[in-house]
Amino acid sequence: MQNFILHTPTKILFGKDQIAELGQQIPADARILITYGGGSVKKNGVLDQVYAALAGRNVQEFSGIEPNPTYETLMKAVDIVRAENIDFLLAVGGGSVVDGTKFIAAAADYSADRDPWHILQTVGSEITQAVPMGCVLTLPATGSESNSGAVITRKSSGDKQHFFSPLVQPLFAVLDPVVTYSLPARQIANGVVDAFVHTIEQYLTYPVDAKVQDRFAEGLLLTLLEDGPRALAEPENYAVRANVMWSATMALNGLIGAGVPQDWATHMLGHELTAMHGLDHAQTLAIVLPALLVEKKAQKREKLLQYAERVWGLRDGSEEQRIDAAIAATREFFEKMGVPTRMADYQLDGSSIPALLDKLQQHGMTALGEHQDITLAVSERIYQAAR
Amino acid sequence: MQNFILHTPTKILFGKDQIAELGQQIPADARILITYGGGSVKKNGVLDQVYAALAGRNVQEFSGIEPNPTYETLMKAVDIVRAENIDFLLAVGGGSVVDGTKFIAAAADYSADRDPWHILQTVGSEITQAVPMGCVLTLPATGSESNSGAVITRKSSGDKQHFFSPLVQPLFAVLDPVVTYSLPARQIANGVVDAFVHTIEQYLTYPVDAKVQDRFAEGLLLTLLEDGPRALAEPENYAVRANVMWSATMALNGLIGAGVPQDWATHMLGHELTAMHGLDHAQTLAIVLPALLVEKKAQKREKLLQYAERVWGLRDGSEEQRIDAAIAATREFFEKMGVPTRMADYQLDGSSIPALLDKLQQHGMTALGEHQDITLAVSERIYQAAR
Repeated sequence: MQNFILHTPTKILFGKDQIAELGQQIPADARILITYGGGSVKKNGVLDQVYAALAGRNVQEFSGIEPNPTYETLMKAVDIVRAENIDFLLAVGGGSVVDGTKFIAAAADYSADRDPWHILQTVGSEITQAVPMGCVLTLPATGSESNSGAVITRKSSGDKQHFFSPLVQPLFAVLDPVVTYSLPARQIANGVVDAFVHTIEQYLTYPVDAKVQDRFAEGLLLTLLEDGPRALAEPENYAVRANVMWSATMALNGLIGAGVPQDWATHMLGHELTAMHGLDHAQTLAIVLPALLVEKKAQKREKLLQYAERVWGLRDGSEEQRIDAAIAATREFFEKMGVPTRMADYQLDGSSIPALLDKLQQHGMTALGEHQDITLAVSERIYQAAR
Repeated sequence: MQNFILHTPTKILFGKDQIAELGQQIPADARILITYGGGSVKKNGVLDQVYAALAGRNVQEFSGIEPNPTYETLMKAVDIVRAENIDFLLAVGGGSVVDGTKFIAAAADYSADRDPWHILQTVGSEITQAVPMGCVLTLPATGSESNSGAVITRKSSGDKQHFFSPLVQPLFAVLDPVVTYSLPARQIANGVVDAFVHTIEQYLTYPVDAKVQDRFAEGLLLTLLEDGPRALAEPENYAVRANVMWSATMALNGLIGAGVPQDWATHMLGHELTAMHGLDHAQTLAIVLPALLVEKKAQKREKLLQYAERVWGLRDGSEEQRIDAAIAATREFFEKMGVPTRMADYQLDGSSIPALLDKLQQHGMTALGEHQDITLAVSERIYQAAR
């Protein structure tokens, strides 16, 4: 096991009707800005529940945060926070709304002589203060509700980049599985794939004899395999939605990644596909991951064998056969969730690969993976294999 | 899954040489009281490491906190905290030192017109402030380093009782597996049994389809089964000690118990054995748990079958046979760790059982277990079966 520091301070309020407990988590005299997306939280009644929980409080709202939230949109909210002296942000939505609100939190308090895009350029390292925030999660997927990271897109330049700061970690997160019942199947499928890949990226590297972290990761993968498809087939099965929601949070709150090597190359290669072609985030992961695993079979050999056995129950055949079967099963799982795994399935013929590689280079993504050996040449092979 | 609130704010600094990072976790101008036990931290150099990390700071110390820390001893430290205006407590030791320091933290700031034993009588519910604390853990076992509970003994009356308060949860915990190398085998064995039983008590109840919690619990049990005996056989195997240490922390930080039924009867029946006869805490758990599982076979049937299959790999034979085999294997594991599982092994003939039941009644422990159906009559059968 490697040395680590783990801090998971976000208070989780999990379960049916927990939105009603929200008020106690925010200072009574706070000037609150509720942030949300395209309005589904209005239609499904979640916003009404939030307002009911905040009755009599000082509340304003900002809507229109899009999937893959943009700097351009978020800066409008920053203006409101500054003009209205907002001192608490409440994100109501999925990972994009939570991520976007993290940016608003940091940008509103950012040094006045800097354009807040600098936050992305410095990966959050120069954030010294932020507006406190909490969230009501409506889509289990990104884990953003209880971590310190966010991914922001700049429309004008086609950049999709991330930053981290403990100052933007939500103070609390309300997770009510019932609010996910009305989600479109595509969003549930995307969420399951996203959480699955987050787990893989902290697990499928090389062994460091971290037995707890490995078994926790395997527990999340098995749960997503079992209950991911059921979440599509039985949208109002509370237990299933609860297991998916809790898995997605646990997949990226720092716990399973503490003390183990990590490989975020799938996300990095995927971000460029979203930024350039507008694919859903999870679609890009489903495209990149199987190709990456094939490319890095040798380096990930021992963990791939463990994954094959413990997650897929593959015990027969040669090592090579078990590894290939595990990668194939992973691809089939994504397909079964309704998320195709080839660029061609999204009408991409691979002609943009040189441009994608240029973007990776621009963003400094030239030595990815747990061994920093996914160079641009390797990324090119992965993109090519993913066509 | 049941509704839950989960808050795990203790910052974990895990790994070799992490004690050196301690200074940054405590305010620079704090008046620090280091608390410790019988002096093993002096012999093994841990206290020197702590002082080195706090060079130039305002530091005093209080030693002599015993296993099963007593009110009588701890009140002496409370006097020092009050007299010296201590504003940060740093526990350096195992669960007893951490538990004792939690009591000091709460008692020092407790309402002046109340004897602090009232904290135990009200299970911590009336604590309104406490001195902030952190800890350097030297013995993986109780999980006290990252939770809000403590168990305190009053020597004068022979009571051993617990309390909880978020105000006494350590702000940080330093976990360096190297410091456990010098522990006596008996303490390592006790720690493994304690962590194993903590996990069982949050797992072996009845199913609520909480797949993540179940698999996390099973992951801890499997890790303790594999690396517990190795921790005895290979005392300086870092990876093994690291896995045991991390398992013990994860077993009782709230995570695996969130959203599932719990059964703390083994601990409650065990506490009375320690208070009356001075047995080690883990020895009492090893005595009580197998007898309790036999007694509650019917109520715990489904989870016992899951435990038999997933933890012990028992898939053949009738349900009854698998359950019996899993309980027998649990007992054998404790024996293999060098912790005997019968009262007779500790020269107890059962003649104190009526007195133990009186104590349970005095402490209000008359409806224990996940169904509150472990009455005094049931506890009597468990004690009798454990002779």
